[in-house]
Amino acid sequence: MLTYDIKGKNKYYSLYCNIRDDILNGRLKSGQKLPSKRALAQDLSISVITVQTAYEQLLAEGYIYSVERSGYYVANVSVDFYGRRELPPEPRSQENKFKADFVKGGAATGLFPFSVWAKLMRRVLADCGEHLLERVPCDGDGELKRAVASYLYRARAINTDPRYVVIGAGAEYLYGVIVQLLGRDKLFAVENPGYGKISASYILNGAQCAYISVGEKGADCGEVEKSGADVLHISPSHQFPTGAVIPASERMRLINWVSDGGKYIIEDDYDSEFRLSGKPLQCMQSLCPDRVIYMNTFSKSLAPSMRMGYMVLPPKLYERYIKLFSHSACVVPLFEQKTLAVMLDGGYFERHISRLKNHYKCVRKAVLDRAKNLGVGCVIDDTGSGLHLIAEFPDAPSDEYVRQTALKNSINVKCLSDYLLAPAKVKEKCAVINYSGITVEQIENIKI
Amino acid sequence: MLTYDIKGKNKYYSLYCNIRDDILNGRLKSGQKLPSKRALAQDLSISVITVQTAYEQLLAEGYIYSVERSGYYVANVSVDFYGRRELPPEPRSQENKFKADFVKGGAATGLFPFSVWAKLMRRVLADCGEHLLERVPCDGDGELKRAVASYLYRARAINTDPRYVVIGAGAEYLYGVIVQLLGRDKLFAVENPGYGKISASYILNGAQCAYISVGEKGADCGEVEKSGADVLHISPSHQFPTGAVIPASERMRLINWVSDGGKYIIEDDYDSEFRLSGKPLQCMQSLCPDRVIYMNTFSKSLAPSMRMGYMVLPPKLYERYIKLFSHSACVVPLFEQKTLAVMLDGGYFERHISRLKNHYKCVRKAVLDRAKNLGVGCVIDDTGSGLHLIAEFPDAPSDEYVRQTALKNSINVKCLSDYLLAPAKVKEKCAVINYSGITVEQIENIKI
Repeated sequence: MLTYDIKGKNKYYSLYCNIRDDILNGRLKSGQKLPSKRALAQDLSISVITVQTAYEQLLAEGYIYSVERSGYYVANVSVDFYGRRELPPEPRSQENKFKADFVKGGAATGLFPFSVWAKLMRRVLADCGEHLLERVPCDGDGELKRAVASYLYRARAINTDPRYVVIGAGAEYLYGVIVQLLGRDKLFAVENPGYGKISASYILNGAQCAYISVGEKGADCGEVEKSGADVLHISPSHQFPTGAVIPASERMRLINWVSDGGKYIIEDDYDSEFRLSGKPLQCMQSLCPDRVIYMNTFSKSLAPSMRMGYMVLPPKLYERYIKLFSHSACVVPLFEQKTLAVMLDGGYFERHISRLKNHYKCVRKAVLDRAKNLGVGCVIDDTGSGLHLIAEFPDAPSDEYVRQTALKNSINVKCLSDYLLAPAKVKEKCAVINYSGITVEQIENIKI
Repeated sequence: MLTYDIKGKNKYYSLYCNIRDDILNGRLKSGQKLPSKRALAQDLSISVITVQTAYEQLLAEGYIYSVERSGYYVANVSVDFYGRRELPPEPRSQENKFKADFVKGGAATGLFPFSVWAKLMRRVLADCGEHLLERVPCDGDGELKRAVASYLYRARAINTDPRYVVIGAGAEYLYGVIVQLLGRDKLFAVENPGYGKISASYILNGAQCAYISVGEKGADCGEVEKSGADVLHISPSHQFPTGAVIPASERMRLINWVSDGGKYIIEDDYDSEFRLSGKPLQCMQSLCPDRVIYMNTFSKSLAPSMRMGYMVLPPKLYERYIKLFSHSACVVPLFEQKTLAVMLDGGYFERHISRLKNHYKCVRKAVLDRAKNLGVGCVIDDTGSGLHLIAEFPDAPSDEYVRQTALKNSINVKCLSDYLLAPAKVKEKCAVINYSGITVEQIENIKI
C-alpha cells in the first residue's frame, strides 16, 4: 500500500502530487497496479472522493490509466518527462461507482454513429482539402448555418433566415457570448430550481442573476414581471429539473413582458429533440423572433464531447454580434462544422435522433415499470418529454431519506430541492430521474 | 448593371439585401456574373468599399462565389432556401485588391503541410476511434499538454510541468479566459502603439486598459510602475508594431515590479518561432514562473484558421483555473488536439517551422534588398526577429505622405502612428512592413 501523510486543506492535491512524484522518480513502476480507491482511502484515513479526484487528475494527465473492471495502473512515464516516451493507453471511460447514476446525466454515446461520422470526416477531408484551412467567419461556416436553419425548420418549425444562425462552442461558451452581446449590466433571470451551470456562467461572465420560482406552469410570470430583469433564460418546452412545460397562455404573457422595452428571452431548447410522445409545442422564438434568442447544442443529441452549439439571434442582435465579433474567427474548427453540415443535410443526424428516441423510449418504459413494482410508493407523472422524469415518494419522510435510501442501494439521485439556486418553495420527496446515460439493464437491476 | 436605390446609414447592408433578395427570387440566376466592384460602385454612386463589404457578406453566406482573376458569380441557391440544394463552390480566398498588403498580415498558408496534416488526421481517426468522443477536460487533452510542454522546452527553454499548460481556442478566446481568471476589476496595461485586438478583447470582456508607451527598449518601465496596473500584457521578444526587444536590465525591472503584490505579466510570444538570426532571448516566464503567464498560438505557425492557442499558467493560477472552469469542457475538439499532439511529437511541426523560416528569410531579404534600391530614402534596421520590419522614410514630409505614396502604387501599408491606441509619442515616417502573407515576387514587383 502507498503510505503518504495527507493533510492540509487540499487533500486530493496532496495525494495527487505524492503519487505523481513517485511515478516520475520511478518508485511506482510502469504497469504497476494502484490500490483500489476504497482501500487507499481507508489506509490513509481520507475519503473515497478524495482518492477518486486524485486518480482522475492523474488519469487525465496520463500518469495512470484505467482498465475496465480491473482498476488503475501506472502509465509508462519516463523519469525525464520532457523527453519522448510511449504514450499511455487512453482512459476509455471514468469508472462509475454507482449501479445507477441519475445525477451525472451524460448521453447514450454507445449509439453515436461513429462509423458514419468517421466516413463523413474522411469525405470532408478529401472534398474540401486545403479549404479547411480557411478562416471561418465569427458566426460560423455558411454551409453549417444553412444546414442548421433547414434542420430547425423541419424539426422545430423555426422559420429563420440562415444568416441569423450563429455557431459557437457548446452552451457555456454561448452563455458568455450572450453576456457580451447584451451587456453585463443586465439582470439575467433564471429558473429556480434550475441547472446551476447557467447562472454560474452568467455570474462568471460578470452579469447579475435573479431567481424565478418554477411551478407547474413553468417560470412564475408574476415573479418575472416584478423581477426587474432585462433577460429571462427559460426552457419552455421542458424545464430542468421540474419537467414543467409552459402553457400557451403563460407564453403569451411572457411575450407581452418581453415586448415592452429592450428585454430578451433566451429559449434554451436543450432536450427538445427528445419529445417521446405527442406533438411538440411551438417555439417561443416563432412567436416573437425579434425578442427571443433560441439556443441549443449537440451535446445530448450527438456526444457531450462535441463542443458545438448554436443560437438563432433576432436580426438586430445579429447585427450587433457581427459588429462586436467580426474581428474574431469562429472558435469551432471548420472541419467539424463541415462534417456536421453534411451529417444534417444527408439526413444522418435525424436517423440518429430517431434511433436515440427508440432507445430512450425503452429506458423510459423501464423506469416507469420499475417504479410501479419498487415495493415503495412511487408516483411518476409521464409528460412524454425530454430525458428526465420526476419520481415522487409520498410515503418517504423527507428528501434526505429518499437520497440516503437510494445511496444505500448504490443509486445516485438528487431531489428537486437539491437543484434550488436560491431559497424557494419546491415539491418535496421528489427524485429527479435523469436517465440519459442509463441502460435498461441498469434500471431493471435496481433494488430497494 | 444592377439598379438599386442605395441610401440610408447602412449602405452595404442595403446593397447586400437587394442582391440577396434578387438571388432568392430568381432575378439573378445561378452562374450569372456580377458586375465588378468598381463598376457597380460607380453606377450606384457608392464607394468601392461598400460594394466589397456587401460582396464579402454574400460570399461568406454562400449566395455568390468568386473565381480567381475573374470575379463574382451567383451561386446555385434555390428559391426555397430551406430546401436541399446544391452547395455553391467554396470561396477559395478573398480577392486582394493590393499588389502588396503589409497591413493584413496572414500566413504563408501555401506552405502548410496539408498532406501531412490530412495523413495525421486519418491516423488519429483510425487509432483513437470512439475515444475521440470523450469529453476533454477544461485545460485540454493530456497528450497535447505534454507535447506542448515538451516543444516549449526544446524551442523556448521553458521548463514547465505539462499540467500547467492550458489549451484554448485562439488568442482572443484566451484573453477572455484571462479576464475571468484575474478578475475584470483589474487594470490591464497594454503596449502603445500595439495590436488593437488585445485591448479590444480586454475591454469587451469588461476589464479596463491602461496604455504604456513603447520606446526602443520596449514598454516604458517607469510608466508601468506609475500606471497602477495589476496586469501587464507585453511581447518582450518582439513587440508589434515597433519591433522593440526588451533588454535584460528592463526585464529584471519588470520582474521586480510584478513580484510586488498580486500582479501578473502576460508574455505574449506571438511570433517567437520566427527569430531568423541570432539566439532567442530567455522568456520572462522562465525568470518568474509564479507571476508570468506565457501565451502563444498556432495562427502564425500553422494557419490562421487553426483556432488553437495555449497558456502556461503559474501554479496558483492553474488551480484557480481548474476551480473556475472544471465544470466546462475544453472548447477545442479532441480530434484537432490529438492531431496537433502527433504533429508536435513526431517532429512534423518543427520541420514545418524550419521550412517557414527559410521562406521568410527569403521574403525578408527581398524586402531589405528592395528597400535599398527603391529610389527614395528608406532605412530598415534588421533586428532579425519576427515577421515584420520598420521602414523609415527620412525624406518623406509626413506619415500621410508615406501611406498615400504607397497607396498610389497599390501598396497597403500603415505607419507606426496608425497603431496608437491612445495619444503618445511615436517615431514618424515609419512604415510597418508586415510581410507574413507576402511573396518574394510581390516584393520584387514593388515600384514607387
